Amino acid sequence: MLTVASPADALAAIQEHFGAIRTRVVSVPLAESLGRVLAEDIRSREDVPGFDRSTMDGYAVHAQDTFGATEALPAMLKPVGTVHMGQVPAFSLNKGECAYIPTGGELPQGADGVVMVEYTENLNDGFLYVQSSIAPGANVIYRGDDVKEGQLLMKQGQVIRPQEVGALAALGVPLAPVYERLRVGILSTGDELVEVSAPQTGSVVRDVNTYALSAGLSAIGAEPVRYGITKDDHASLTAALSIALRECDAVLISGGSSVGTADMTRRIIDEAGRPGVFLHGVAVKPGKPTIVGDIGGKPVFGLPGHPVSAYFIFRIFAAPILQRMMGVIREQPREAFAIMGRNVPSNHGRQEYLPVALTEEDGRKVALPVASKSGLITTLVGADGFVCIPRDAEGLMRGQHVTVTLF
Amino acid sequence: MLTVASPADALAAIQEHFGAIRTRVVSVPLAESLGRVLAEDIRSREDVPGFDRSTMDGYAVHAQDTFGATEALPAMLKPVGTVHMGQVPAFSLNKGECAYIPTGGELPQGADGVVMVEYTENLNDGFLYVQSSIAPGANVIYRGDDVKEGQLLMKQGQVIRPQEVGALAALGVPLAPVYERLRVGILSTGDELVEVSAPQTGSVVRDVNTYALSAGLSAIGAEPVRYGITKDDHASLTAALSIALRECDAVLISGGSSVGTADMTRRIIDEAGRPGVFLHGVAVKPGKPTIVGDIGGKPVFGLPGHPVSAYFIFRIFAAPILQRMMGVIREQPREAFAIMGRNVPSNHGRQEYLPVALTEEDGRKVALPVASKSGLITTLVGADGFVCIPRDAEGLMRGQHVTVTLF
Repeated sequence: MLTVASPADALAAIQEHFGAIRTRVVSVPLAESLGRVLAEDIRSREDVPGFDRSTMDGYAVHAQDTFGATEALPAMLKPVGTVHMGQVPAFSLNKGECAYIPTGGELPQGADGVVMVEYTENLNDGFLYVQSSIAPGANVIYRGDDVKEGQLLMKQGQVIRPQEVGALAALGVPLAPVYERLRVGILSTGDELVEVSAPQTGSVVRDVNTYALSAGLSAIGAEPVRYGITKDDHASLTAALSIALRECDAVLISGGSSVGTADMTRRIIDEAGRPGVFLHGVAVKPGKPTIVGDIGGKPVFGLPGHPVSAYFIFRIFAAPILQRMMGVIREQPREAFAIMGRNVPSNHGRQEYLPVALTEEDGRKVALPVASKSGLITTLVGADGFVCIPRDAEGLMRGQHVTVTLF
Repeated sequence: MLTVASPADALAAIQEHFGAIRTRVVSVPLAESLGRVLAEDIRSREDVPGFDRSTMDGYAVHAQDTFGATEALPAMLKPVGTVHMGQVPAFSLNKGECAYIPTGGELPQGADGVVMVEYTENLNDGFLYVQSSIAPGANVIYRGDDVKEGQLLMKQGQVIRPQEVGALAALGVPLAPVYERLRVGILSTGDELVEVSAPQTGSVVRDVNTYALSAGLSAIGAEPVRYGITKDDHASLTAALSIALRECDAVLISGGSSVGTADMTRRIIDEAGRPGVFLHGVAVKPGKPTIVGDIGGKPVFGLPGHPVSAYFIFRIFAAPILQRMMGVIREQPREAFAIMGRNVPSNHGRQEYLPVALTEEDGRKVALPVASKSGLITTLVGADGFVCIPRDAEGLMRGQHVTVTLF
C-alpha cells in the first residue's frame, strides 16, 4: 500500500486503478442532454445542408444571364415562379428566366446563383431588371458544403453544450447516447456531528460535508446519494458502507479528523472487499489524511472531516476520476491569470492549495489569499478559486504571476 | 420604437424595461440549492465556531504551566480527564493539570492552550511530560473567531456554489431562500421546419432552435417550456404566443429569416398586449433582425430563424436580462485571453461575434476563427467561445490580443 504519496503519484495511482472503468451507456432525450457526456462518436448520416440553398432573399438566376449587368444597363429576366420555404421547387429555370427565392429556400433546377433583392427592380412589366452581375455560386450554399455524409462531428467524451444539442437536432438525433451518471454515496461520520436543522448547543458541529460534497458531486454531473450522519464506531460505519457500496458506484466517507478515526476508516474500507485500500495519506495542505480504496472496481474515498480539507481533497483527487468514469476525456479547467496581491509564506513541505479572491487593480487581476484563522467552510464563500503552491516553492511573492483554478 | 439600435443601446433599453423585475422568492432544500440565486442576504445567527476549540490532537493546558519546558526539562502535568468530540467537558482545569483533547474538541474551562501530542510523553507514572512551551491561545480557535453573530456572509444575488451550500449548512440553514426559476416559453416558427426525428427529405429543415434555445435556457438556470413548431401564419402564431404568455414569464420566438416573417412576428408581439414591441433590429453579425417586446412586464424576444444567429442573439441580448430577473447581480463571464491566429477581414459595419477555437502554440493560447460557408449550428461544435469585433474595427490582425468569451 502506498503511504503519504505526492499529489502527482496519488493521482497516477488512482487513475491506474479506475481509469479504464466507464459507467454504462444510456440514451437520453435531446432536451435533457445538456451537460451529459457523449458515449459515442457522432457522424453525420447525411449531407448538411441537404439541398442547394440560398443565403439571401433574392432571385435565383443563371449567373451567365447577369454578366455585364449594371444599374444603367440592367439584364432583363423573366420571372417564372416563386420558391417557397420547405418546398422543393416544382419548376426549373431556363436561360433568361428567374424566380423569387427566400433565404434558406431551395435553388430550382438550372439556377446557379442568387441575385440579392436589393440589386433588382420590378416594374410590373413582366420582367425583372437585374442591376448587378453575379458569379456562378453567388449567395448559394451547396448540398454538403457544411457537413458531408459520414463526417465525424462530435467525439465520444465530449461534454454536451447548447450548441451540441443544436447540432444533434440538426443531424436528426432525438436521443443522445451518453454515459450514465455515477451514483456516489456520501457517508458523514463523527460523534460531534448533528443535522443542519439542529440548534448549535454545546460543542456539536453541524454536518457540512454531506451538503458540500453533495453539491460538489452535482456540479461534476454525478448523482449524490446522501446517507446522512453515521456514528463513529466500527459496526455503524461498516453497516453504512456496505449499504452504500450495494447501492452506489462510488462512496465518499468524510470522517473525524483525528489519527484514530482515520485508522478506523481505513480498516473499515479494507474490510469491505477486494482489493481494498491502496493509498493512504497525501501530502497536501489542506487535506491530510486521505484514504483511497478499490472495492470491486468501486472507488471509496476516505476524506478528512474538516470541511475545507474534505472539499479540496474531493476536488483534487476524487472529482477527476469520477469524471473520467463518466466518460470525460479532457476536463477544461476554468482558469484565470492574476498576480499575487501579497506575499504568502512557505508551506511546510506540503503542496498547498491556497483559496484566493480575485480583484481588479489598475486594470490587472490581483489574487488575494482568503484569510481565516480556522479555515472553516464559510471562508471559502469569499474565494473565487485557488492557487496551487508546489511543495518545493518558498511561498509566493507579491507581484508574482499565478494561475488561479476557478471554483 | 427603437429601430436598428446599436448593441449597447439595445442592451440598455432592455435593461430599462425589465431590470427592476424579479421572480418571486422560494425556499428550496439545501441539497437542491446548487446554482440557484440567493434572494436574501445571509447573516450568521450565531458565533462560528460556537465554542473555543482545539486545532490539534494534544493536551489542553494552562499555557503558563509550560513556560520554560524543553525536552531535557519537561513540565510535569497531571492528566485529569479526556475531552470527547461533541461533548462539553464535564470538568475544568486547575493549574498544574491537563486533559487529552482531540482536534475540534471543546477547550475545558480554565485551559488557554493546547500542546500538540508530539511534544508530550506519557510514561504511565501518573504524569504527562510536556517537552515544549506554548503561548496562551496556541492551537486554539476561540468562539466567534471565524464569524461573529450577525455578520454578513452571503449577499442577495450570489449564485450558490458548493462552498455556499457548505456554509449554509454550517450556519444551520436547511432551506435556502432563492429566486424562483423563470419559465421561458420557446416557439419555433417556419413552414420549412420539421421535428428532429423527421427524415431529411426535400427542402425541409429540422427544428434546431427549440433544442438549442432550450439548452441555453437550462444553462442559465431558467426552466424552458418547449411549444414546438408553430405554423408561420398570423392566426397560429397569435394563438401559440397567447398560450405561452399565459403559462410563462418570458417567451422566445425564433422565426423565419426573411423580411416578411420578421414583420409578422413584430406585429403579432405588438398585438399580444401592452406596451408591446419597443425595439426592432440590432446591428450585429450574426443576428439581424431582433425584436424585443414587453407584454405586461414579460419579455418577448423575436429571434432570427437561423440557428447560429438565434443562439448569439439569445446569449447577448436575452440571457443577461433573464438572469437579472432571476436575481443575478453580476454574471462572471468566463473568459480566456488569446492572440489571433490569422487575419479576419472587416465586418460590414456591424458589431460581429466571431466563433473561435482555442489552440496552444509555443505555450501561447491562439484563437482561430471557426470557418463555415453556411454558418450552420454544426460549426459551433468546433468553437470554444467567441470574439467580439466592434463595429468600427477594421477587422482583426494575426497576432492581435483578444478576449474570448467562452461558451
